[in-house]
Amino acid sequence: MTFYLGAPICLADLVTRPENSLIHQSVKAKERLEPLNGDGFGVAWYVKGLSQAARFRSLTPAWSNANLDELARVTQSHCLLAHVRAATDGTFDVAEANCHPFRKGRYAFMHNGHIEQFPKLRRALMARLSHPAFNSIRGNTDSEHLFALVSDFLPPEASGHVDDLIRALRLGIATLHELIDQHAPNARVFLNVILTDGHCAAVCRYSSDPTRIDSLYINRGERYGCHEQRCWMDSGENDAVKAVLVSSEPLNSGPNWQPVPPNHLLGIDSDLRVCSQIIEQPRIDRPADSVEGNEP
Amino acid sequence: MTFYLGAPICLADLVTRPENSLIHQSVKAKERLEPLNGDGFGVAWYVKGLSQAARFRSLTPAWSNANLDELARVTQSHCLLAHVRAATDGTFDVAEANCHPFRKGRYAFMHNGHIEQFPKLRRALMARLSHPAFNSIRGNTDSEHLFALVSDFLPPEASGHVDDLIRALRLGIATLHELIDQHAPNARVFLNVILTDGHCAAVCRYSSDPTRIDSLYINRGERYGCHEQRCWMDSGENDAVKAVLVSSEPLNSGPNWQPVPPNHLLGIDSDLRVCSQIIEQPRIDRPADSVEGNEP
Amino acid sequence: MTFYLGAPICLADLVTRPENSLIHQSVKAKERLEPLNGDGFGVAWYVKGLSQAARFRSLTPAWSNANLDELARVTQSHCLLAHVRAATDGTFDVAEANCHPFRKGRYAFMHNGHIEQFPKLRRALMARLSHPAFNSIRGNTDSEHLFALVSDFLPPEASGHVDDLIRALRLGIATLHELIDQHAPNARVFLNVILTDGHCAAVCRYSSDPTRIDSLYINRGERYGCHEQRCWMDSGENDAVKAVLVSSEPLNSGPNWQPVPPNHLLGIDSDLRVCSQIIEQPRIDRPADSVEGNEP
Amino acid sequence: MTFYLGAPICLADLVTRPENSLIHQSVKAKERLEPLNGDGFGVAWYVKGLSQAARFRSLTPAWSNANLDELARVTQSHCLLAHVRAATDGTFDVAEANCHPFRKGRYAFMHNGHIEQFPKLRRALMARLSHPAFNSIRGNTDSEHLFALVSDFLPPEASGHVDDLIRALRLGIATLHELIDQHAPNARVFLNVILTDGHCAAVCRYSSDPTRIDSLYINRGERYGCHEQRCWMDSGENDAVKAVLVSSEPLNSGPNWQPVPPNHLLGIDSDLRVCSQIIEQPRIDRPADSVEGNEP
Repeated sequence: MTFYLGAPICLADLVTRPENSLIHQSVKAKERLEPLNGDGFGVAWYVKGLSQAARFRSLTPAWSNANLDELARVTQSHCLLAHVRAATDGTFDVAEANCHPFRKGRYAFMHNGHIEQFPKLRRALMARLSHPAFNSIRGNTDSEHLFALVSDFLPPEASGHVDDLIRALRLGIATLHELIDQHAPNARVFLNVILTDGHCAAVCRYSSDPTRIDSLYINRGERYGCHEQRCWMDSGENDAVKAVLVSSEPLNSGPNWQPVPPNHLLGIDSDLRVCSQIIEQPRIDRPADSVEGNEP
Repeated sequence: MTFYLGAPICLADLVTRPENSLIHQSVKAKERLEPLNGDGFGVAWYVKGLSQAARFRSLTPAWSNANLDELARVTQSHCLLAHVRAATDGTFDVAEANCHPFRKGRYAFMHNGHIEQFPKLRRALMARLSHPAFNSIRGNTDSEHLFALVSDFLPPEASGHVDDLIRALRLGIATLHELIDQHAPNARVFLNVILTDGHCAAVCRYSSDPTRIDSLYINRGERYGCHEQRCWMDSGENDAVKAVLVSSEPLNSGPNWQPVPPNHLLGIDSDLRVCSQIIEQPRIDRPADSVEGNEP
Repeated sequence: MTFYLGAPICLADLVTRPENSLIHQSVKAKERLEPLNGDGFGVAWYVKGLSQAARFRSLTPAWSNANLDELARVTQSHCLLAHVRAATDGTFDVAEANCHPFRKGRYAFMHNGHIEQFPKLRRALMARLSHPAFNSIRGNTDSEHLFALVSDFLPPEASGHVDDLIRALRLGIATLHELIDQHAPNARVFLNVILTDGHCAAVCRYSSDPTRIDSLYINRGERYGCHEQRCWMDSGENDAVKAVLVSSEPLNSGPNWQPVPPNHLLGIDSDLRVCSQIIEQPRIDRPADSVEGNEP
Repeated sequence: MTFYLGAPICLADLVTRPENSLIHQSVKAKERLEPLNGDGFGVAWYVKGLSQAARFRSLTPAWSNANLDELARVTQSHCLLAHVRAATDGTFDVAEANCHPFRKGRYAFMHNGHIEQFPKLRRALMARLSHPAFNSIRGNTDSEHLFALVSDFLPPEASGHVDDLIRALRLGIATLHELIDQHAPNARVFLNVILTDGHCAAVCRYSSDPTRIDSLYINRGERYGCHEQRCWMDSGENDAVKAVLVSSEPLNSGPNWQPVPPNHLLGIDSDLRVCSQIIEQPRIDRPADSVEGNEP
């Protein structure tokens, strides 16, 4: 998955042009156990004057979708999300309703990773949801349910404050851990998440298993641009930052890609300043030494 | 929707050949308010030696599906189900997971009609479900949820007794009315349902609104056959019945189509004998006179 | 099919909002023999700075396409095309490659109607095509082949002169008639066509059968606008025209819809002035009496 | 691609059960440069009493197609074909019309490989086709055009003689080489082909480039069977052969898979006897030494 916030760019600059574009990631993701992400995709982008992000999703693979190519070519936005799905283990259907990003009002959300033993949790999770969040569920993925959980902690009207996003994401994860403690205590969760309201964003790279965490990168600079099939981020003088990329894999071989620190949550405010917080491991009843023993 | 039980026939004899075949019903249903059923379709058929019915579903319209044509041409079975969807009001997604028939183990189920104010009921309905029934939900239609409710009253292993099907359908409808009483007392339900285990079937034609009920027909005879685009039911001598059709519309202009009596439940046993029961209107707490006042 | 040229409007103003929007026409076209247009659709729109129109096509029905809804909501353009397909007779596949509009470079083209006995013509038609036009054929519709024929008469670089469009359309139709004379002399053609380069457009309403012609309307005014589900064309004072609609059916019940005269070709230049020419019936070499003899 | 002829088996025994089933080949083909075959698939099978093979094709990937799973589970046949497509270079559309197997009357055909510079050949190739073969073209792949060429050499009514299949395949390839000589003399062709009439089959493994040839295997035995996810070929005593598999990759790690010799054409008659012929390299005008120099 890839996210951009900053001066307007073309959707193609994320989806089709970079060496390691989303299209490329759909065929051969480099840093994932399962390199194939051919079970549908979705893109979303914010449009001036409209609060809800526009979205295009399809259950067919990204690499052969002529409509995606067309949209990528003509769509300009200051805030874009793009996601390719891998459902190869067959737990969840390949269906449009299961494709990210998910939306609620002005908010958009996407997730890389999974929640183990989700069928044990689904019922209890749904019981926690508000009525509107409950009825918003259209598909059957862990991701959509997680977003429903998070969305209940979001202010109904987007405030534009990054703290609101951070808080909702943090509470959503904490609630998920409560549910796991009660219903599936051995289940691990892998939660790389991007949540935005079109002005600011909260990002987390999180795993409850200290021995394994999926990749997530951030890249900040003065300008992100592409020429033909080459894309790069210009470093700003004086630390002027006007473009932020977050991506499960670097889009190119440029130098500016920084891993998001494991088990951290980043806030990106509307001035593109980034703050970072640790996500504490859940208050687990496992003896502390066993956890220490696992640390790399 | 159309259902067949009896001596083996070809799927094309339901789906493509009759004057008013399922394909035709997908374009121009005659007896429905909304004549267009272009939001996907599904067929299921039982195969000797396999307990679960085979199924083919698609979210594209039946009338242009080349694969359906092919399957219809080569598939023979003694028990077949076929359904075309209309989701034109947009309440439920056009998605494969929302296409009938639904299945659980050996059972298959399809529904014409709808449950009003379903979003008010969904949560309470899901709370009633067993864990497996809860997790079996893949889509978001009222129909699939109704089947989940019914399926919890079905014996895990199909007994081949039609009474088991009748009982489950009856209890499912009663439970639905309980939920409606509590959560959406004005909601009407329109429940034309076919439920089978491949040996016998329960069928209901039911509406909670005395002024409106969807059509449903039954046709029994010695042999159902087609020659090119003409299909007919041979009446058996001595009342020998070896073929039963149930269909939301007659498949042809033949004489044998009998309306299923309103608010009745039919059982069709494995010898193709039909029994009929009334479905009592719900024990409604509305004052009796207001109900009488509504009667036509 | 619906076409707009003028001051920028939203795609939704053609596709979803009007009483008789494209979505509505996909379910229940009012003036066509076959009211159902559920075999895919396409939209195209011109974007400032890009010569080729952007396009979104799908083989699923327009009425249930969530992506179309989204695009309609956020897309603004001064020149838009929208088309719904009916392939119910099954001559041509339901496939994305068969959905209009077709494009070549800056040009976009859509067609309502059909060419009778097309299989008798296809080979000879393809033999007439330039190599690039031949290889541009991706599907198997009469419409795409007609556009290939027309496109060979278009200047490689769009000139912005409406005369170039008119000439190409006229020559394409004349060539088609030559082919018909040679290979399928009884074949009738029904050619309602819209051809544009994003600046100007040529439109024809043409039938070779004097007893039958499909509908086509034009609506010119100062401003075309929508408020919720109501759309209207403001008549300009002093004949100021800043918006032109061409549509196979009026989009609303407003007064300004004028039928395009039968067997006429309209040119709409970049100042939205309209010129009109008659399309002569083909110079048919058949003896006049034989034509009479054919009349029923 | 995988082909079976012999005593009836279940489609699942080719498509889903083997270690290296067609589903597996769709995700990770082992012996191909491009391991991903996610651009649609097709299966075909012959049914007693019907001359034309039944076919199921889809433009979505094989690995997530629930309908394919269902069909695989219930379909029994003595002659089955299965194919997964890779169109990743984007030359040809991902479309149902482009999915193999192709059919004409009783014949079915599938192809692994490609014809270089096909756009230079298409026009001349089409000019060679009979009228019916010309009009049979629905898509735009090299493979479908090759089959059209081959099909013109097939007897209209299948004779059941393997020689007819061999002859047509041989003449089709020779004609293709003629066209290449005239229109694209440097174009290489990679032609692994399976052609059947449901009784017998012709198979070729052919490349015009001596340095590269795609894999193709044959496996003959007394019985091909599966138990859960394990499949094997029983060797027959006394060379009794009642089952023949041909596959671009071995379906399992069993010992009986023999490579089809490079540039050979095999005939499999209705008694499952196999004959083998060399396919002579085209009469190429390149100096002989350069060809020798390329040999491995």
